[in-house]
Amino acid sequence: MSRLLYELAGEDPGRRFSPYCWRTRFALAHKGLEAEGTPWRFTEKDRLAFSGQGLVPVLVDGDTVLSDSWRIAEWLEEKHPDRPSLFGGAPALVRFVNSWADTALHPALARLIIMDIHGCLAPADQAYFRQTREARFGASLEAIQAKREVELPAFRKLLQPLRGALAGKPWLGGDTPNYADYIVLGSFQWARCTSPFRLLAEDDVVFDWRARGFALFDGMAAKAKGYTA
Amino acid sequence: MSRLLYELAGEDPGRRFSPYCWRTRFALAHKGLEAEGTPWRFTEKDRLAFSGQGLVPVLVDGDTVLSDSWRIAEWLEEKHPDRPSLFGGAPALVRFVNSWADTALHPALARLIIMDIHGCLAPADQAYFRQTREARFGASLEAIQAKREVELPAFRKLLQPLRGALAGKPWLGGDTPNYADYIVLGSFQWARCTSPFRLLAEDDVVFDWRARGFALFDGMAAKAKGYTA
Repeated sequence: MSRLLYELAGEDPGRRFSPYCWRTRFALAHKGLEAEGTPWRFTEKDRLAFSGQGLVPVLVDGDTVLSDSWRIAEWLEEKHPDRPSLFGGAPALVRFVNSWADTALHPALARLIIMDIHGCLAPADQAYFRQTREARFGASLEAIQAKREVELPAFRKLLQPLRGALAGKPWLGGDTPNYADYIVLGSFQWARCTSPFRLLAEDDVVFDWRARGFALFDGMAAKAKGYTA
Repeated sequence: MSRLLYELAGEDPGRRFSPYCWRTRFALAHKGLEAEGTPWRFTEKDRLAFSGQGLVPVLVDGDTVLSDSWRIAEWLEEKHPDRPSLFGGAPALVRFVNSWADTALHPALARLIIMDIHGCLAPADQAYFRQTREARFGASLEAIQAKREVELPAFRKLLQPLRGALAGKPWLGGDTPNYADYIVLGSFQWARCTSPFRLLAEDDVVFDWRARGFALFDGMAAKAKGYTA
């Protein structure tokens, strides 16, 4: 069965940087499923009209069209129960991590790399990105990123729940990684693909976990176009 | 086997308000274990000397002396594998919630009820509490709590991961509650025991979950000395 994944791309179509698309990329790899990726840009809403909405990831799996990374993960879990589980019997807790990444991690992380993201985009996307993000954050992209050294300590403090989880186990999923890991790895991959900014100290347990995560599936995330994390 | 739990108490020894002690109370109930509770106050460090540290909960279970709510939960899980599981096979994710409550939820919640907590304490504890908390927050208890109406929207926004988790399942533990629920219920019980302040809107999914949680184990939390949540 053919599978096609619409992935947010920069001006360079090989730079696939959306954290939500990476969640789906990891989920597919975890289930041992192949999917062709096709680059998509913020301003190409019409190309997603067939999905009934305007955001990626969009997964076309045979006759099935799916959007929303969480919905895609649930669908993969349901469709392939014989493959390794994405949720490890704890779907509500994995979704807790999903919401935490969306509402706590991303707003703080975006501020540290927002001009770097802008710098990766095609010209039409740059205009769209500047307009929507400056409205969201109430400041110019330049002004937001200019404060990143000041905001870095608070960002690192925000990661405390990860350190708690990793104090006793190698992965958020426990002894092996699962979708909870992929959610947060997707967030860090978003940064790695767009920015050279050093988010983590090397003696942070999250640093080691991130390196192990990027090395999964034959270095899938580590080999993707980006910077050295 | 006799079990004794040292629990933080207010001036009224029946007011047991520590969120960490409630984690242990819930964990014991989940495992179907009885424990006698004994009131302890902040300034009675000497009464805990036998435990090698100065914080509650302290659980004395036969010959075993345990402190730290997370360590107690791990020990109960290990000692009673035949009883319902506290971690549901996802210990790292439950510990993620544990760290989130300690480092994100509690600092924000404490600010909303800090004078109310102070009002519940015995005089010696009031002096200790004011000194340590005013140093921690860098402001007078009165000044901190005076801002609670202003800070309430941000507090409610902070709960977004709970709403995510509860969007698809009735409990953080999934179809049945587990220690992840008890951690956060303990935080809300801390507030219920000390403050009449309305933390949640009634149409919030967290409001309903909290009511169901307080009703568990024959209304253990709902019946404890405090206010109507």
